[in-house]
Amino acid sequence: MAGSALSVIDLQAGVLEGCHDADAVVARCRVLAEHARAEAPVLWVQHEEEDMPRGSPSWQRVGGLGSTPGEPCVPKTFRDAFADMPLRSLLQQARVQRLLIADAQGGYCIRTTAQRSRGYAVTLVSDAHITTASVFGGVASSGEQIVAHADRYFPGLRYPGEDDLAAHDAVTF
Amino acid sequence: MAGSALSVIDLQAGVLEGCHDADAVVARCRVLAEHARAEAPVLWVQHEEEDMPRGSPSWQRVGGLGSTPGEPCVPKTFRDAFADMPLRSLLQQARVQRLLIADAQGGYCIRTTAQRSRGYAVTLVSDAHITTASVFGGVASSGEQIVAHADRYFPGLRYPGEDDLAAHDAVTF
Repeated sequence: MAGSALSVIDLQAGVLEGCHDADAVVARCRVLAEHARAEAPVLWVQHEEEDMPRGSPSWQRVGGLGSTPGEPCVPKTFRDAFADMPLRSLLQQARVQRLLIADAQGGYCIRTTAQRSRGYAVTLVSDAHITTASVFGGVASSGEQIVAHADRYFPGLRYPGEDDLAAHDAVTF
Repeated sequence: MAGSALSVIDLQAGVLEGCHDADAVVARCRVLAEHARAEAPVLWVQHEEEDMPRGSPSWQRVGGLGSTPGEPCVPKTFRDAFADMPLRSLLQQARVQRLLIADAQGGYCIRTTAQRSRGYAVTLVSDAHITTASVFGGVASSGEQIVAHADRYFPGLRYPGEDDLAAHDAVTF
Protein backbone atom coordinates (compact mmCIF):
# COMPACT_ATOMS: atom_id res chain seq x y z
CA MET A 1 0.00 0.00 0.00
CA ALA A 2 1.38 3.43 -0.90
CA GLY A 3 2.86 5.19 2.10
CA SER A 4 3.24 1.97 4.09
CA ALA A 5 6.33 0.24 5.45
CA LEU A 6 6.96 -3.00 7.31
CA SER A 7 9.15 -2.58 10.38
CA VAL A 8 10.69 -5.79 11.74
CA ILE A 9 12.06 -5.20 15.23
CA ASP A 10 14.47 -7.20 17.40
CA LEU A 11 14.06 -10.61 15.77
CA GLN A 12 17.50 -11.58 17.06
CA ALA A 13 18.87 -14.68 18.75
CA GLY A 14 19.40 -13.03 22.14
CA VAL A 15 15.99 -11.40 22.17
CA LEU A 16 14.08 -14.51 21.14
CA GLU A 17 15.47 -16.65 23.97
CA GLY A 18 12.58 -17.88 26.09
CA CYS A 19 9.89 -16.54 23.78
CA HIS A 20 6.91 -18.84 23.23
CA ASP A 21 6.29 -20.08 19.71
CA ALA A 22 9.43 -18.38 18.38
CA ASP A 23 10.00 -20.66 15.38
CA ALA A 24 6.48 -20.19 14.00
CA VAL A 25 6.57 -16.42 14.48
CA VAL A 26 9.98 -16.10 12.84
CA ALA A 27 8.79 -18.18 9.86
CA ARG A 28 5.72 -15.94 9.57
CA CYS A 29 7.89 -12.82 9.68
CA ARG A 30 10.10 -14.17 6.90
CA VAL A 31 7.09 -14.69 4.63
CA LEU A 32 5.66 -11.33 5.69
CA ALA A 33 8.91 -9.55 4.69
CA GLU A 34 8.98 -11.37 1.34
CA HIS A 35 5.40 -10.35 0.58
CA ALA A 36 5.85 -6.79 1.84
CA ARG A 37 8.98 -5.90 -0.10
CA ALA A 38 7.18 -6.39 -3.39
CA GLU A 39 5.27 -3.19 -2.70
CA ALA A 40 6.60 -1.42 0.40
CA PRO A 41 9.89 -0.64 2.12
CA VAL A 42 11.04 -3.09 4.80
CA LEU A 43 12.90 -1.50 7.73
CA TRP A 44 14.93 -3.69 10.07
CA VAL A 45 15.43 -2.47 13.61
CA GLN A 46 18.10 -4.32 15.55
CA HIS A 47 18.75 -3.96 19.27
CA GLU A 48 22.21 -3.81 20.81
CA GLU A 49 23.34 -3.42 24.39
CA GLU A 50 26.21 -4.29 26.69
CA ASP A 51 25.43 -8.00 26.94
CA MET A 52 24.31 -8.21 23.29
CA PRO A 53 26.91 -6.16 21.39
CA ARG A 54 26.77 -5.58 17.65
CA GLY A 55 28.22 -8.55 15.80
CA SER A 56 27.86 -11.03 18.69
CA PRO A 57 25.96 -14.33 18.17
CA SER A 58 23.05 -13.13 20.32
CA TRP A 59 22.80 -9.91 18.26
CA GLN A 60 22.33 -11.78 14.96
CA ARG A 61 18.96 -11.99 13.26
CA VAL A 62 17.59 -15.52 13.24
CA GLY A 63 15.99 -17.98 10.86
CA GLY A 64 17.19 -16.55 7.60
CA LEU A 65 15.69 -13.15 8.35
CA GLY A 66 17.96 -11.25 6.03
CA SER A 67 17.68 -7.78 4.63
CA THR A 68 18.12 -7.33 0.91
CA PRO A 69 20.65 -4.77 -0.36
CA GLY A 70 19.42 -1.25 0.20
CA GLU A 71 16.99 -2.12 3.00
CA PRO A 72 17.80 0.05 5.98
CA CYS A 73 18.82 -1.61 9.23
CA VAL A 74 18.46 0.80 12.14
CA PRO A 75 20.33 -0.02 15.35
CA LYS A 76 18.67 0.85 18.65
CA THR A 77 19.82 0.84 22.25
CA PHE A 78 16.57 1.79 23.98
CA ARG A 79 13.20 0.05 23.96
CA ASP A 80 11.80 2.98 22.03
CA ALA A 81 13.17 2.76 18.49
CA PHE A 82 12.38 6.46 18.03
CA ALA A 83 14.45 7.48 21.08
CA ASP A 84 17.98 7.84 19.78
CA MET A 85 17.92 6.54 16.22
CA PRO A 86 17.09 8.14 12.87
CA LEU A 87 13.92 6.11 12.39
CA ARG A 88 11.69 9.17 12.04
CA SER A 89 13.88 10.76 9.36
CA LEU A 90 14.11 7.44 7.48
CA LEU A 91 10.33 7.20 7.50
CA GLN A 92 10.01 10.79 6.33
CA GLN A 93 12.44 10.19 3.47
CA ALA A 94 10.44 7.15 2.38
CA ARG A 95 7.18 9.13 2.76
CA VAL A 96 5.84 6.51 5.13
CA GLN A 97 2.57 7.24 6.92
CA ARG A 98 1.57 3.72 7.92
CA LEU A 99 3.75 1.27 9.81
CA LEU A 100 3.12 -2.46 9.96
CA ILE A 101 5.08 -3.91 12.90
CA ALA A 102 6.42 -7.43 13.49
CA ASP A 103 8.58 -7.93 16.52
CA ALA A 104 10.18 -9.95 19.29
CA GLN A 105 9.66 -8.79 22.88
CA GLY A 106 6.19 -7.45 22.17
CA GLY A 107 5.74 -6.81 25.88
CA TYR A 108 8.57 -4.29 25.95
CA CYS A 109 10.09 -2.77 22.80
CA ILE A 110 7.07 -3.06 20.55
CA ARG A 111 4.76 -1.44 23.09
CA THR A 112 7.23 1.34 23.74
CA THR A 113 7.95 1.97 20.06
CA ALA A 114 4.36 1.65 18.89
CA GLN A 115 3.10 3.93 21.66
CA ARG A 116 5.65 6.58 20.71
CA SER A 117 4.79 6.53 17.04
CA ARG A 118 2.36 9.45 17.22
CA GLY A 119 1.76 10.79 13.72
CA TYR A 120 1.91 7.38 12.06
CA ALA A 121 -0.83 4.86 11.59
CA VAL A 122 0.50 1.71 13.24
CA THR A 123 -0.74 -1.82 12.70
CA LEU A 124 0.57 -4.57 14.95
CA VAL A 125 0.72 -7.92 13.20
CA SER A 126 -0.77 -9.89 16.07
CA ASP A 127 0.56 -13.28 15.03
CA ALA A 128 4.01 -11.87 14.22
CA HIS A 129 5.07 -10.57 17.60
CA ILE A 130 6.09 -12.51 20.66
CA THR A 131 7.56 -11.98 24.07
CA THR A 132 8.84 -13.78 27.16
CA ALA A 133 6.78 -14.67 30.21
CA SER A 134 6.83 -12.20 33.08
CA VAL A 135 6.55 -12.37 36.87
CA PHE A 136 6.13 -9.47 39.27
CA GLY A 137 5.16 -9.73 42.92
CA GLY A 138 4.43 -13.42 42.48
CA VAL A 139 1.92 -12.83 39.65
CA ALA A 140 2.92 -14.56 36.41
CA SER A 141 1.79 -13.85 32.85
CA SER A 142 2.67 -15.98 29.85
CA GLY A 143 4.18 -14.44 26.73
CA GLU A 144 1.00 -15.31 24.89
CA GLN A 145 -1.09 -13.34 27.41
CA ILE A 146 1.19 -10.30 27.24
CA VAL A 147 1.05 -10.27 23.45
CA ALA A 148 -2.75 -10.65 23.50
CA HIS A 149 -3.07 -7.69 25.85
CA ALA A 150 -0.85 -5.53 23.62
CA ASP A 151 -3.13 -6.47 20.70
CA ARG A 152 -6.20 -5.62 22.80
CA TYR A 153 -4.67 -2.32 23.95
CA PHE A 154 -3.47 -1.03 20.65
CA PRO A 155 -6.53 -0.53 18.43
CA GLY A 156 -8.02 1.76 21.09
CA LEU A 157 -5.03 4.11 21.25
CA ARG A 158 -5.83 7.60 19.97
CA TYR A 159 -4.16 10.99 19.89
CA PRO A 160 -5.58 14.45 19.26
CA GLY A 161 -5.78 15.38 15.61
CA GLU A 162 -5.39 11.84 14.32
CA ASP A 163 -7.66 11.17 11.40
CA ASP A 164 -8.73 7.82 10.04
CA LEU A 165 -5.40 7.24 8.34
CA ALA A 166 -3.68 7.36 11.69
CA ALA A 167 -5.99 4.85 13.37
CA HIS A 168 -4.13 2.07 15.10
CA ASP A 169 -4.92 -1.56 14.64
CA ALA A 170 -3.86 -5.14 15.36
CA VAL A 171 -4.41 -7.70 12.62
CA THR A 172 -3.37 -11.27 11.93
CA PHE A 173 -1.09 -11.96 8.98
CA MET B 1 10.24 14.69 48.87
CA ALA B 2 11.16 18.03 47.22
CA GLY B 3 10.29 18.08 43.54
CA SER B 4 7.80 15.20 43.84
CA ALA B 5 4.08 15.05 43.20
CA LEU B 6 1.43 12.37 43.53
CA SER B 7 -0.75 12.00 40.46
CA VAL B 8 -4.04 10.14 40.98
CA ILE B 9 -5.53 9.16 37.63
CA ASP B 10 -9.03 8.00 36.65
CA LEU B 11 -10.22 6.71 40.02
CA GLN B 12 -13.80 7.26 38.90
CA ALA B 13 -16.95 5.16 39.15
CA GLY B 14 -17.18 4.42 35.42
CA VAL B 15 -13.51 3.50 35.12
CA LEU B 16 -13.44 1.24 38.15
CA GLU B 17 -16.31 -0.96 36.93
CA GLY B 18 -15.08 -4.52 36.61
CA CYS B 19 -11.67 -3.82 38.14
CA HIS B 20 -10.41 -6.49 40.53
CA ASP B 21 -9.84 -5.47 44.15
CA ALA B 22 -11.19 -1.96 43.54
CA ASP B 23 -12.28 -1.23 47.11
CA ALA B 24 -8.89 -2.06 48.60
CA VAL B 25 -7.01 -0.06 45.98
CA VAL B 26 -9.28 2.97 46.38
CA ALA B 27 -8.84 2.84 50.18
CA ARG B 28 -5.06 2.67 49.69
CA CYS B 29 -5.15 5.64 47.30
CA ARG B 30 -7.11 7.69 49.83
CA VAL B 31 -4.47 7.08 52.52
CA LEU B 32 -1.70 7.68 49.98
CA ALA B 33 -3.18 11.08 49.05
CA GLU B 34 -3.56 12.04 52.73
CA HIS B 35 0.09 11.13 53.43
CA ALA B 36 1.38 12.76 50.26
CA ARG B 37 -0.30 16.13 50.62
CA ALA B 38 1.57 16.81 53.85
CA GLU B 39 4.72 17.25 51.80
CA ALA B 40 3.99 17.21 48.06
CA PRO B 41 1.38 18.43 45.58
CA VAL B 42 -1.42 16.02 44.73
CA LEU B 43 -2.68 16.23 41.12
CA TRP B 44 -5.98 14.66 40.19
CA VAL B 45 -6.47 13.57 36.59
CA GLN B 46 -10.05 12.77 35.66
CA HIS B 47 -11.14 11.14 32.42
CA GLU B 48 -14.18 12.21 30.43
CA GLU B 49 -15.62 10.95 27.18
CA GLU B 50 -18.89 10.63 25.33
CA ASP B 51 -20.32 7.85 27.48
CA MET B 52 -18.80 9.28 30.68
CA PRO B 53 -19.39 13.03 30.43
CA ARG B 54 -18.20 15.51 33.02
CA GLY B 55 -20.62 15.64 35.94
CA SER B 56 -22.27 12.27 35.24
CA PRO B 57 -22.41 9.57 37.98
CA SER B 58 -19.82 7.43 36.16
CA TRP B 59 -17.46 10.43 35.91
CA GLN B 60 -17.41 11.00 39.71
CA ARG B 61 -14.43 10.04 41.81
CA VAL B 62 -15.25 7.21 44.21
CA GLY B 63 -14.81 6.31 47.83
CA GLY B 64 -14.33 9.73 49.30
CA LEU B 65 -11.41 10.48 47.00
CA GLY B 66 -11.74 14.22 47.24
CA SER B 67 -9.35 16.95 46.33
CA THR B 68 -8.71 19.67 48.88
CA PRO B 69 -9.10 23.32 47.84
CA GLY B 70 -6.30 24.40 45.54
CA GLU B 71 -5.38 20.91 44.36
CA PRO B 72 -5.48 20.88 40.58
CA CYS B 73 -7.87 18.53 38.83
CA VAL B 74 -6.85 18.02 35.19
CA PRO B 75 -9.46 16.65 32.81
CA LYS B 76 -8.31 14.30 30.05
CA THR B 77 -10.00 12.80 27.03
CA PHE B 78 -7.19 10.56 25.75
CA ARG B 79 -5.38 7.69 27.48
CA ASP B 80 -2.24 9.81 27.54
CA ALA B 81 -2.78 12.54 30.15
CA PHE B 82 -0.03 14.58 28.48
CA ALA B 83 -1.78 14.50 25.08
CA ASP B 84 -4.17 17.41 25.17
CA MET B 85 -4.13 18.73 28.72
CA PRO B 86 -1.91 21.22 30.53
CA LEU B 87 -0.33 18.56 32.75
CA ARG B 88 3.22 19.37 31.68
CA SER B 89 2.85 23.10 32.39
CA LEU B 90 1.24 22.38 35.76
CA LEU B 91 4.18 20.15 36.65
CA GLN B 92 6.65 22.79 35.51
CA GLN B 93 4.93 25.47 37.60
CA ALA B 94 5.11 23.22 40.65
CA ARG B 95 8.76 22.38 39.85
CA VAL B 96 7.95 18.69 39.82
CA GLN B 97 10.65 16.28 38.66
CA ARG B 98 9.32 13.05 40.17
CA LEU B 99 5.83 11.68 39.72
CA LEU B 100 4.29 9.03 41.92
CA ILE B 101 1.31 7.49 40.10
CA ALA B 102 -1.81 5.79 41.45
CA ASP B 103 -4.46 4.87 38.93
CA ALA B 104 -7.42 2.90 37.66
CA GLN B 105 -7.10 1.19 34.26
CA GLY B 106 -3.40 0.50 34.76
CA GLY B 107 -3.42 -1.56 31.57
CA TYR B 108 -4.37 1.44 29.44
CA CYS B 109 -4.14 5.02 30.69
CA ILE B 110 -1.39 4.54 33.22
CA ARG B 111 0.86 2.75 30.74
CA THR B 112 0.23 5.36 28.09
CA THR B 113 0.72 8.30 30.44
CA ALA B 114 3.71 6.86 32.26
CA GLN B 115 5.43 5.87 29.02
CA ARG B 116 4.96 9.39 27.66
CA SER B 117 6.39 11.07 30.74
CA ARG B 118 9.91 11.39 29.35
CA GLY B 119 11.84 13.91 31.41
CA TYR B 120 10.20 12.95 34.69
CA ALA B 121 11.16 10.25 37.13
CA VAL B 122 8.03 8.13 37.42
CA THR B 123 7.23 5.69 40.19
CA LEU B 124 4.21 3.44 39.81
CA VAL B 125 2.62 2.55 43.13
CA SER B 126 2.19 -1.12 42.35
CA ASP B 127 -0.54 -1.78 44.91
CA ALA B 128 -2.41 1.41 43.99
CA HIS B 129 -3.26 0.75 40.38
CA ILE B 130 -5.78 -1.64 38.94
CA THR B 131 -7.38 -2.57 35.67
CA THR B 132 -10.02 -4.75 34.07
CA ALA B 133 -9.44 -8.21 32.64
CA SER B 134 -8.73 -8.44 28.91
CA VAL B 135 -9.36 -10.95 26.13
CA PHE B 136 -7.94 -10.86 22.61
CA GLY B 137 -8.01 -13.71 20.12
CA GLY B 138 -9.35 -16.04 22.81
CA VAL B 139 -6.40 -15.39 25.15
CA ALA B 140 -7.49 -13.95 28.51
CA SER B 141 -5.47 -12.03 31.09
CA SER B 142 -6.75 -11.02 34.51
CA GLY B 143 -6.51 -7.43 35.73
CA GLU B 144 -4.00 -8.60 38.33
CA GLN B 145 -1.76 -10.07 35.60
CA ILE B 146 -1.93 -6.92 33.47
CA VAL B 147 -1.02 -4.72 36.44
CA ALA B 148 1.86 -7.04 37.40
CA HIS B 149 3.26 -6.87 33.88
CA ALA B 150 3.08 -3.05 33.88
CA ASP B 151 5.02 -3.12 37.17
CA ARG B 152 7.55 -5.53 35.66
CA TYR B 153 7.88 -3.41 32.51
CA PHE B 154 8.26 -0.05 34.07
CA PRO B 155 11.48 -0.11 36.14
CA GLY B 156 13.40 -1.13 33.02
CA LEU B 157 12.21 1.79 30.88
CA ARG B 158 15.03 4.17 29.98
CA TYR B 159 15.52 7.15 27.69
CA PRO B 160 18.70 8.83 26.42
CA GLY B 161 20.10 11.42 28.76
CA GLU B 162 18.13 10.29 31.79
CA ASP B 163 20.20 10.38 34.93
CA ASP B 164 19.52 8.60 38.20
CA LEU B 165 16.85 11.12 39.18
CA ALA B 166 14.82 10.15 36.15
CA ALA B 167 15.00 6.40 36.80
CA HIS B 168 11.61 4.72 36.69
CA ASP B 169 10.39 2.41 39.39
CA ALA B 170 7.44 0.44 40.71
CA VAL B 171 7.04 0.24 44.49
CA THR B 172 4.39 -0.90 46.92
CA PHE B 173 2.76 1.69 49.18
